[in-house]
Amino acid sequence: MHSTSDILDIRQVEKSKIDQVDFDNLAFGKNYADHMMVCDYKDGAWQKPKILPYGPMEFEPSAKVFHYGQAVFEGMKAFKDENNKVWLFRPEENFNRINISSKRMAIPEFPKDYFFAALETLLKLDEKWVHPGDGNSLYIRPFVIASENGVSASPSNEYKFMIICCPAKAYYNSPVKVLVADHYSRSADGGVGFAKAAGNYGAQFYPTNLANEKGYQQIIWTDSNSHKYLEEAGTMNLFFRINDKLITAPTSDRILDGVTRKSIIDLARHQGVEVEVRKITVEELVSAAVDGSLKEIFGTGTAATIAFIEGFEYADKYHDLPQIENPYSLRFKKGLQDIQYNRAEDPFGWRYEVKLD
Amino acid sequence: MHSTSDILDIRQVEKSKIDQVDFDNLAFGKNYADHMMVCDYKDGAWQKPKILPYGPMEFEPSAKVFHYGQAVFEGMKAFKDENNKVWLFRPEENFNRINISSKRMAIPEFPKDYFFAALETLLKLDEKWVHPGDGNSLYIRPFVIASENGVSASPSNEYKFMIICCPAKAYYNSPVKVLVADHYSRSADGGVGFAKAAGNYGAQFYPTNLANEKGYQQIIWTDSNSHKYLEEAGTMNLFFRINDKLITAPTSDRILDGVTRKSIIDLARHQGVEVEVRKITVEELVSAAVDGSLKEIFGTGTAATIAFIEGFEYADKYHDLPQIENPYSLRFKKGLQDIQYNRAEDPFGWRYEVKLD
Ligand SMILES: Cc1ncc(COP(=O)(O)O)c(C=O)c1O
Ligand SMILES: Cc1ncc(COP(=O)(O)O)c(C=O)c1O
Repeated sequence: MHSTSDILDIRQVEKSKIDQVDFDNLAFGKNYADHMMVCDYKDGAWQKPKILPYGPMEFEPSAKVFHYGQAVFEGMKAFKDENNKVWLFRPEENFNRINISSKRMAIPEFPKDYFFAALETLLKLDEKWVHPGDGNSLYIRPFVIASENGVSASPSNEYKFMIICCPAKAYYNSPVKVLVADHYSRSADGGVGFAKAAGNYGAQFYPTNLANEKGYQQIIWTDSNSHKYLEEAGTMNLFFRINDKLITAPTSDRILDGVTRKSIIDLARHQGVEVEVRKITVEELVSAAVDGSLKEIFGTGTAATIAFIEGFEYADKYHDLPQIENPYSLRFKKGLQDIQYNRAEDPFGWRYEVKLD
Repeated sequence: MHSTSDILDIRQVEKSKIDQVDFDNLAFGKNYADHMMVCDYKDGAWQKPKILPYGPMEFEPSAKVFHYGQAVFEGMKAFKDENNKVWLFRPEENFNRINISSKRMAIPEFPKDYFFAALETLLKLDEKWVHPGDGNSLYIRPFVIASENGVSASPSNEYKFMIICCPAKAYYNSPVKVLVADHYSRSADGGVGFAKAAGNYGAQFYPTNLANEKGYQQIIWTDSNSHKYLEEAGTMNLFFRINDKLITAPTSDRILDGVTRKSIIDLARHQGVEVEVRKITVEELVSAAVDGSLKEIFGTGTAATIAFIEGFEYADKYHDLPQIENPYSLRFKKGLQDIQYNRAEDPFGWRYEVKLD
């Protein structure tokens, strides 16, 4: 492992833009921290990563990313504790996953020392952008795009690995209603659903618009073959609580292996809650809703942490979820955030301290 | 319908780059014609289209196309005849299809008068880039990308519709060997396979790399549910000739409705060849190969026109196709090109003359 200065070129902003940001009224994804990381892949190798002022870049209209969606991304967060220490949550998982995504999209894998040196340097430079306080965080977006010019449908020989950051408050503020998919689908067996490939997300916008028009904020995707099995939401994995047991679908090549999902499985089991990782059918969900054994549905993801779902529609019928005391969703959200914000023990070793000096 | 000057802003190059291009040794997609069209969508409307010198453009790293693959494209060609007239082939089909693709990707549809005014103006300005001679053409790439800045996974409020052009020779020069997919897949029922959505193409690169390593240039995709039905290749629809009958799969929400495919169906029928548009199984293909009734397989697409396939592998077994006299593939390729290059009658009304004065 090299030292940071060996492996990064750094050019700092002359003046921070942080004073222009109203942290009390943040629109997510509209303000970017002062610096970004850019690393070019060319001549068969990742070049020296650069930290630069965040800002526009030049691309030719023929850059492959515009035509063939050869692009992947990650989403992670940095949290500030009461002593102004900055923490990441399981960053190795995101590092591993972006390379899993890259491989499926024929993008060269990124070196681990570059990734961590860039992350730590960015967070040190933009430390003020990590706002303290519950629900506040700095959202970190690593991504890779095919930057070679050329309109022939073949893998790019040039890429840019970048990291940009933007301050975030809690993602979903209110409970969401969801629609269970019975026509559209998100991914195929043998496809790229398990990867955070750019095109997976754009492909969901239209069906999600249709759901929005019906009053649903999100879609629960089912398997594309039969629409019988519950899979995940657009950017969240799903948990179903039937009586006191939690059920979540196993990951597959159609489902993203979410970091929050696996953390909630561990946290729930650690707290003595039974978790079943198994296929669950729409039919089982509907009958549990009808007989009253369905107590909760919640989504898990870095952006939302835990999103509480208040009801779902399937086959033109809406099923309301009961209002319950001390729901798992709140308990596990607090449990997770207590670890993320360094307010509790971390028996799992999930926290990762960012050295600020 | 407005007149061209009403609806376009035009800024011409000072000096053409055409002298730098070696038309005898073209690498496809490496040289771009002097001009491009750019039209911005913002505030809920497509703004006035601009014709500009082809060149790099600025994008913020948070532009949605980089993160969510909200992007679609088209591919079409302009041909020059012996009298230096320039022709398009069924351009209305491409116009309609890009809007079908856009709709599925939650992108606003593009106005028809803008599309045709831009196309005609570009071709008039860059008329010299349409090189005469059999197999030569100017490849035209209309595309739309989500240009709004923002890392939240939701449809963009801003887009760029662009057209860039590059000179092309025949795409595949030699016969191709193909691998029939039995694990990876291209698209799902209820997905975006019928759209020319950017992400569909990037997702094929990795399985295609694996096929290349085994000595196959292309994959024949099968349905993702069962891998039993033959669908299409990466950028071509497929025709199977069993004895004297042609078979091609029906289009669906997984298969692109190719302009070349439907033209070949019409052309073949016009020439008295029986064409069946129906599902065809891998099993049927293999047994026809084994009993000798499989005479030809060929792919159809704008880039390749017709690509002759010399053999396929399925389940670890390679099947060679026979060498036959006067194959359909050559006959229909010639038939199509005769119409495209204005060397023959056009009973179908497919040619579209570009006014050059
Ligand atoms: C499709 C999908 N499912 C689930 C998740 C949740 O994953 P994680 O908990 O790692 O953020 C995400 C992303 O964040 C996602 O994009
Ligand atoms: C997936 C796919 N199938 C088939 C084709 C052939 O379509 P067309 O004949 O309209 O070029 C294309 C594109 O060109 C394609 O991208």
